[in-house]
Amino acid sequence: MDRNHVSAATSNHALGYDMTAFDYLASTTDQRLNQLKEFLRFPSVSAQSDHKADIRDCATWLNRHLNDIGLTSKLEETAGNPVVYAEYHADSDAPTVLYYGHYDVQPPEPLDLWTTPPFEPEIRDGYLYARGATDDKGQTFTHIKGLEAVLKSEGRLPVNVKMLIEGEEEVHSANLPGYLKKNKERLKADIAVISDTAQFDKKRPAITFGLRGIAASEITVYGPNRDLHSGSYGGAIANPITVLAQLVAQLHDKNNKVKIPGFYEHVRPVSRKTRQMYETLPFSERTFLREVGAKGLHGEKGFTTYERKWDRPTCEINGITGGYQGEGAKTIIPSFASCKITMRLVPDQDPDDVNRKLAAYLKSICPPSVKLKVDLWGGASAVVVPNDGPWLDAAAAAIKKGFGKKPVFMKEGGSIPVVADLKNLIGVDTLLLGFGQNDDNIHSPNERFRIVDFENGCRTAAALPDELASVSTR
Amino acid sequence: MDRNHVSAATSNHALGYDMTAFDYLASTTDQRLNQLKEFLRFPSVSAQSDHKADIRDCATWLNRHLNDIGLTSKLEETAGNPVVYAEYHADSDAPTVLYYGHYDVQPPEPLDLWTTPPFEPEIRDGYLYARGATDDKGQTFTHIKGLEAVLKSEGRLPVNVKMLIEGEEEVHSANLPGYLKKNKERLKADIAVISDTAQFDKKRPAITFGLRGIAASEITVYGPNRDLHSGSYGGAIANPITVLAQLVAQLHDKNNKVKIPGFYEHVRPVSRKTRQMYETLPFSERTFLREVGAKGLHGEKGFTTYERKWDRPTCEINGITGGYQGEGAKTIIPSFASCKITMRLVPDQDPDDVNRKLAAYLKSICPPSVKLKVDLWGGASAVVVPNDGPWLDAAAAAIKKGFGKKPVFMKEGGSIPVVADLKNLIGVDTLLLGFGQNDDNIHSPNERFRIVDFENGCRTAAALPDELASVSTR
Repeated sequence: MDRNHVSAATSNHALGYDMTAFDYLASTTDQRLNQLKEFLRFPSVSAQSDHKADIRDCATWLNRHLNDIGLTSKLEETAGNPVVYAEYHADSDAPTVLYYGHYDVQPPEPLDLWTTPPFEPEIRDGYLYARGATDDKGQTFTHIKGLEAVLKSEGRLPVNVKMLIEGEEEVHSANLPGYLKKNKERLKADIAVISDTAQFDKKRPAITFGLRGIAASEITVYGPNRDLHSGSYGGAIANPITVLAQLVAQLHDKNNKVKIPGFYEHVRPVSRKTRQMYETLPFSERTFLREVGAKGLHGEKGFTTYERKWDRPTCEINGITGGYQGEGAKTIIPSFASCKITMRLVPDQDPDDVNRKLAAYLKSICPPSVKLKVDLWGGASAVVVPNDGPWLDAAAAAIKKGFGKKPVFMKEGGSIPVVADLKNLIGVDTLLLGFGQNDDNIHSPNERFRIVDFENGCRTAAALPDELASVSTR
Repeated sequence: MDRNHVSAATSNHALGYDMTAFDYLASTTDQRLNQLKEFLRFPSVSAQSDHKADIRDCATWLNRHLNDIGLTSKLEETAGNPVVYAEYHADSDAPTVLYYGHYDVQPPEPLDLWTTPPFEPEIRDGYLYARGATDDKGQTFTHIKGLEAVLKSEGRLPVNVKMLIEGEEEVHSANLPGYLKKNKERLKADIAVISDTAQFDKKRPAITFGLRGIAASEITVYGPNRDLHSGSYGGAIANPITVLAQLVAQLHDKNNKVKIPGFYEHVRPVSRKTRQMYETLPFSERTFLREVGAKGLHGEKGFTTYERKWDRPTCEINGITGGYQGEGAKTIIPSFASCKITMRLVPDQDPDDVNRKLAAYLKSICPPSVKLKVDLWGGASAVVVPNDGPWLDAAAAAIKKGFGKKPVFMKEGGSIPVVADLKNLIGVDTLLLGFGQNDDNIHSPNERFRIVDFENGCRTAAALPDELASVSTR
């Protein structure tokens, strides 16, 4: 496949369309960037209730925009922020593609670290800077503009489209599972497409074919009923910090394997095919350590860094607190100490099952001189889509057209709960076509989207429907 | 010895003094309480710089009061708050007693938890309530009133007196060691007396004959150069909280002995005499656990609770912090984690030596994938005065007269650095005659002094000079 095989639209010239989808995109760069800036100007911060009106304004704008480009869109209410839901019916025999994105954004704080204000988009040095530029307004917009390009150049789409853009992703999509369940029949699709991840690096576009799951909890060790003087009582009463540290230290063995009994029970070995795939990815220990600023590699013995990040479950302490934390010394035995735990899960591990195993293990090793409280917060299963097959081939072909380069196949260590929800509630697999970069500062000040990534993303999105439409013939 | 042997002053009737020291005290109860209230009204809070003038006013009042009762007192400047220093010369052959106390007090906050304002002393239900009531204005005042009673009833003191009352005890006596060194010759004494501790309980007055020392430090584990996403990086980078917990967990073995190599090198075994002494003290596991609200006893195997509190060194974590500590979950691997450590020391352990051993041990067990920083903050040696001998017998006799009961002998797990300073810089042992109670709320809201303890304390203080004067003849 090459750049000349850009679109099936050449045959449509006879129908009155005198340009390809890529031609259309090339001629509308300024217009698309200006429209994206408009989209980015809404401070649609879902975590902050004083932005409730901005959220609705943003959804209303988006809804109108989707209708304008030729989809049939409407605002659908939930218990929280509205979902923007658009459809396009091509043909009952054509595959149905469910696009997912989100129009809400992370809080912009701390504001003083932004070079230009977060909701006044500005282009500098080849980047568009604004909150939401990549996550996820910018990436969602590539698909809107890609579909528009096909519609404008070919007059029609070769696939049925269902597009669901929610407004609560940054606040854990509390109302999405309910929405999916309620609209299960209407949302049925052959494949889902999400662009809410990153490329492998600036030279390598990527398809992500696996995400780890998560199970979250908090544990608290209670000792005396108040902070005690560590001189008067030290040595004669259990110190909750020390006990908590002893519990945490027993979560891993000396090979950094998780010691919770049964933790690895359902974990699949890393397949030879996966290992071979990772061997094609570049890895420099020096570059990796420099990027994170750590002193040395670390992790479960017998696995590479990619396997540790993508294929092995973890047990991480995200925060710990107890006793005096101010300046200088304060001689107390604190009344309690606590820590927050998230375990990253891989396919076939069940979040509730693993959390229960954690709780049982901690209770079994906790000394009787303290009281242990374990709060299990639930989680999400890992997701893996097959790392080969026609849908993935179609997505790879679209990326090849959009970026001029074949994608690499990778996984992501984090979790995108909606992917599991789409699989479990709608029964559809997801293609994760990330157009961002790891240094796009998502969730941080100076969020940005590389203009060339936006352009190549739009091109990929324009090429994708044709490729997906041809899956049955591959 | 009994109550009838109250004072040698009976022989002084012939010299024109028609009452004993105890008679004098009995006839001046209201006056003494009113004077103590005056003393307590000064908000001499050494930790708060806006009380600088109150501190000086308080020292000035105290200085005048000491001159008024017949000592020769003056204000002596230091780099910080002034020392009030008073003397009385009895006879070159008489023993010299160095009294130590402090006129500064803890901050009174939180103010809304006080039933009556902290600097408006009020008597309720047999207690005098005010900041400083016990710690240490009230206890210091017992000795002032005791000496006054002897002077008023007998016309003279049987011992030479040096009285040093400082104004920076609650801010770690920063300028006291310098003052002691500078005035080393002038401060020479045979024995020191401090009342800044508690009785064993409400039924048992006590002499404290040992205090643990302390060595303080802070350790920090540095991982990545910023908080990392625990999904993207979890499993492939060392988590500073986990590493810190593993270090802390290696500070004790399964018998709760401290594992730092060489930690017990200079620790003396608990003597049979000390064990026998403790056996005379009541101990109820139920009462102890109810008082501190803990679920069970805990500590170094092979030792009783008293031994663990008073005779064995400890290694306690006073505070720990790292990563996310707000509500809910935040999926990060934090950039660093730290904890504060204080080790309680027993005689012959050197704070700097033990701190160095801690640092060396932590460095030897810390994995190379993180950076470890150990800040050693120094400390103070343990103090032990002989638990028998003539000075202690004299003090016990004075308590027997003052309280009508023989004291028990106990230790205190905390540290009073001035006791070590007096020993090391002036070469004098200290008698610790505590008149407070454990529930006097020192350092807390509603600090108080039991009136009966104040009275018995004054009586003990009045009986003490005679008893100390007779030491050479015992």
